[in-house]
Amino acid sequence: MTRKVRPLEWDGEKLTLIDQRKLPHEEVFLSYTDVEGVHSSIKDMVVRGAPLIGFTALYGMVLALKNLKSPSLKEMVKAGEFLKTARPTAVNLAYEVDRALDLMKDYFEKESHEDLLKRLISFSNDQMELLKQNNLSMAKYAFDELKSIYGDKKLNLMTLCNTGFLACGPMGTALGVIEYAHEQGFVNHVYASETRPYLQGGRLTAYELTVNGIPHSVTVEGAFSYLMKNQLVDAIFIGADRIVKNGDTANKVGSSTLAIVAKHYGVPFYTVAPTSTFDLSLETGAEIEIELRPEEEVLGAMGQRICPRESRALNPSFDVTDHEHLSGIICENGLIKNITPENVVKTVEGE
Amino acid sequence: MTRKVRPLEWDGEKLTLIDQRKLPHEEVFLSYTDVEGVHSSIKDMVVRGAPLIGFTALYGMVLALKNLKSPSLKEMVKAGEFLKTARPTAVNLAYEVDRALDLMKDYFEKESHEDLLKRLISFSNDQMELLKQNNLSMAKYAFDELKSIYGDKKLNLMTLCNTGFLACGPMGTALGVIEYAHEQGFVNHVYASETRPYLQGGRLTAYELTVNGIPHSVTVEGAFSYLMKNQLVDAIFIGADRIVKNGDTANKVGSSTLAIVAKHYGVPFYTVAPTSTFDLSLETGAEIEIELRPEEEVLGAMGQRICPRESRALNPSFDVTDHEHLSGIICENGLIKNITPENVVKTVEGE
Repeated sequence: MTRKVRPLEWDGEKLTLIDQRKLPHEEVFLSYTDVEGVHSSIKDMVVRGAPLIGFTALYGMVLALKNLKSPSLKEMVKAGEFLKTARPTAVNLAYEVDRALDLMKDYFEKESHEDLLKRLISFSNDQMELLKQNNLSMAKYAFDELKSIYGDKKLNLMTLCNTGFLACGPMGTALGVIEYAHEQGFVNHVYASETRPYLQGGRLTAYELTVNGIPHSVTVEGAFSYLMKNQLVDAIFIGADRIVKNGDTANKVGSSTLAIVAKHYGVPFYTVAPTSTFDLSLETGAEIEIELRPEEEVLGAMGQRICPRESRALNPSFDVTDHEHLSGIICENGLIKNITPENVVKTVEGE
Repeated sequence: MTRKVRPLEWDGEKLTLIDQRKLPHEEVFLSYTDVEGVHSSIKDMVVRGAPLIGFTALYGMVLALKNLKSPSLKEMVKAGEFLKTARPTAVNLAYEVDRALDLMKDYFEKESHEDLLKRLISFSNDQMELLKQNNLSMAKYAFDELKSIYGDKKLNLMTLCNTGFLACGPMGTALGVIEYAHEQGFVNHVYASETRPYLQGGRLTAYELTVNGIPHSVTVEGAFSYLMKNQLVDAIFIGADRIVKNGDTANKVGSSTLAIVAKHYGVPFYTVAPTSTFDLSLETGAEIEIELRPEEEVLGAMGQRICPRESRALNPSFDVTDHEHLSGIICENGLIKNITPENVVKTVEGE
């Protein structure tokens, strides 16, 4: 059974978002018709995932423009600054707001309100479409790779955290690969690692697999070795938060552990991320600073305290996977199998 | 701050157990004066951990004998059979009950009720003392090994699951090593892996470290690579559920993943378990059957559902660590560093 669920939808009048705080147990859709509402949706984490937050901000700018009596750059800058305060550290949020302002800045004197609105809506829609096309390219590169290794075998695939439509909007990255392979008829079973402490795998990836009708089992991170020793996994796909010049990759904590175990058992392991994720200003993963998140996330689960009151926790949000542990890095420009700084730069720059 | 907490105490009249279901948030002690009460304490999981369940059963037999008007082997066999039904698959439970019966069977006609009771109490106390001495031996072997590697450096140690006094009674195995090293003044910090899905690390190990005044942080299993890549761990000690002839070791799920990562980073990794844990009838770990536990444990946490209703889970209780990934196996007879079937048999048989 497959159901189409859109995490974000613009119908020309209002922006509708699935409330990710309620997933997977309830599917609640919330609609917004003004920038204040969109601001609260980002602030209160109705939406999550860098690309999806970016798109939400774009349509927030659309609503701001739509609701202005007489549009001006000054008013739109004000709306943009307001939107940015919803999550001050979200890079995509500020980036998309600034792109919207850039796009419009030369036209306030020249175009009618209606034309300006059309221009911004069409730009926003195009960004969503572009992400979809890019992620589809990645999925096809990954699929070709799987076919070249396994031929027509139906595969058992594994992933960690959530990198699907709930994070990206129209189509996911690593989970997009799995969903694409499923559509082509080549997925037997998917193992979704639950991804403590925040459980994005158990909550969101399991939800996406469910609505896509993909047979799956959730597993704990401790089961990595069990799964591969027992040959239950044919290939692994994960996303990335940042990929540096030599191919070292920062991603959700657990990724590097998974990669080391996969390498040990000879299970192909791929990072799937758009070129915008690459940071070619850093030479190696050692230069990536890892965010330590609140201890409470580890000291409890599902809103309840696990550990003694006196206990501390160490809660790194990400870890760095050495490029030696990757079978390949997949971006919209291709699959990098021989991971060298030269090949990374060449592929990212589209040469 | 160190507090002495005894998970089991026999004062000559009654058996007092700490209610492990309430830990770490409440320290509730429950006292029992009859075999029915002890049966319920095992059945309802007031106590857990194979050795501790065994000792609880021994004092259950003591109470049964104490309360009989005119002791007979028949009545004691009946009491023993009743105790065994509390957790039918707990090997230690049946084992200790049978040992108590074996001990007494020739004396019902010959000894007074009082002498027979003294005999059984003294046997039970001796078993606790023997475990303590054996676990102390293991701790000393481990400590010598740490000193030989690191000299006088204060160490950062790591463990998984719970193998402390809450599991063993007077002293733990792997966690006993850590507590002993702390008493000697050589522990800087301990990382307790939380051990999803049942969270024995976050709940019980963190509790033991707290009452022993040992500085510690709880971490998720996904953080294995992060911890070692950042050189936060000097050595790792885990327990074992079964060790076979070639040294392959079944232990709580996550152990094998941890061992592979430790080997990758060159972090010393030891299994600590008494000779009673060895099963020399099996040649390699491939022969060990791994129990799959209820899916609900992974699909939820802290009594709440995480995953969609339609999701499945795979919940292996244990995994098998290949002996190649162990720096050593420590039992009361010594430390096996060159892990071969010959050395395992020789050490276990005490030659």
